[in-house]
Amino acid sequence: MVNERSTTPPAFVLDLDGTLVDSVYQHVMAWRRALSDVGIPFSVWQVHRRIGMSGGLLVEAVSREAGKKLTDSESNKVKALHDMYYAENVETVSPLPGARELVSILVENGYKWAIATSGQLSDAKPMLELLDLSPSGTHLVTSDDVSAAKPDPQLFLAATALLGEAPTNVFVLGDSIWDMLAARRAGCIGIGLMSGGFSSAELMAAHAFRVYSDIEDFLKHVDELGIQFPVGTQPA
Amino acid sequence: MVNERSTTPPAFVLDLDGTLVDSVYQHVMAWRRALSDVGIPFSVWQVHRRIGMSGGLLVEAVSREAGKKLTDSESNKVKALHDMYYAENVETVSPLPGARELVSILVENGYKWAIATSGQLSDAKPMLELLDLSPSGTHLVTSDDVSAAKPDPQLFLAATALLGEAPTNVFVLGDSIWDMLAARRAGCIGIGLMSGGFSSAELMAAHAFRVYSDIEDFLKHVDELGIQFPVGTQPA
Repeated sequence: MVNERSTTPPAFVLDLDGTLVDSVYQHVMAWRRALSDVGIPFSVWQVHRRIGMSGGLLVEAVSREAGKKLTDSESNKVKALHDMYYAENVETVSPLPGARELVSILVENGYKWAIATSGQLSDAKPMLELLDLSPSGTHLVTSDDVSAAKPDPQLFLAATALLGEAPTNVFVLGDSIWDMLAARRAGCIGIGLMSGGFSSAELMAAHAFRVYSDIEDFLKHVDELGIQFPVGTQPA
Repeated sequence: MVNERSTTPPAFVLDLDGTLVDSVYQHVMAWRRALSDVGIPFSVWQVHRRIGMSGGLLVEAVSREAGKKLTDSESNKVKALHDMYYAENVETVSPLPGARELVSILVENGYKWAIATSGQLSDAKPMLELLDLSPSGTHLVTSDDVSAAKPDPQLFLAATALLGEAPTNVFVLGDSIWDMLAARRAGCIGIGLMSGGFSSAELMAAHAFRVYSDIEDFLKHVDELGIQFPVGTQPA
């Protein structure tokens, strides 16, 4: 069906937090409280700018910058505190505009697609439920599946392998500069979305090929990328 | 004292939230919950990008974009809900790096300075306490003092008038594009700070003359602006 006009239909790898669901700021506040609890009082915006990398890497990066070496036990404590604080506000998380519509278009038109997240499977599950998706019925790659999450390219390489697709034929949709860097390193084309609070200029500087406000805005402009979704599927 | 070498010492007008205290993200989450409660489910990043304008203007802007006309009573309800949700997390707000040091330098060296905030006096008071300042002992202009807050220039014009200073001789330090726009309109020089989560490019595009990470970073680079704080007062 996707082959009606184009000979090489693209595949899609989608980030989860900040791309499909509106959860970035809740994660930011949870990390900030957790870090503060172990004596690393980072400014909130500095935590925000590190969101999208794996939790382990974030804790390591922030503690290195604060000049404080955390033990494994302290690092695990920060992660556990984050999970606890995030859970307190998880009911305020909702799907981002256009997320459900994009998934429907991809499914109904037979495109290959996957979700690749720096979070763990246990974090991803409730977010997938918000989108009426199940982990078993979705091509999903989480940090549990690889030895290093974003900005390492492993997550995106695993996702493209799962789809049996060449990375160069894959659009990665993500909201953070870490998605864009990992996409570059994997050989995919990064499409930046401002829905996680990174600005257009930051995403472009991280080699996003195009930047849109959110997936709804992306769906209105797919022709700029040579993507040929069937007429009538795009938002007005 | 400030006249030792320079013939025209500059004056300083400082924004409060996101500039002196690390409160932007708490305000963002509080506005988002309040708007959601009245049926305006804005994405969090879209609320973030409107932070720094007055609360009334933010509610008006967001409801206009959502295509929903709020009554005065609904608008007041949103503001009351915001205040309630913000109060729940106010204990997580702390001074931003360099804020206290800048105030000390200004006071000890006889510079003219004021604080100008889009918030109300009741919001500003607890934030000033965090900085060991009192409303009565500080040149303070709040939205209670003017008929329109940022990005209208009235707040900065009122602050420069309070200091008896020509706007062109005033550096405005702020973290939002609304600070930069209001500074331009007032005839002041806007200095952008990334501590509220706006990016360097956004602040430069809004005519910041220079952008720094936060006040601590600004203090390290005042010579780029021809500001001659006494040697030894700047952070290492």
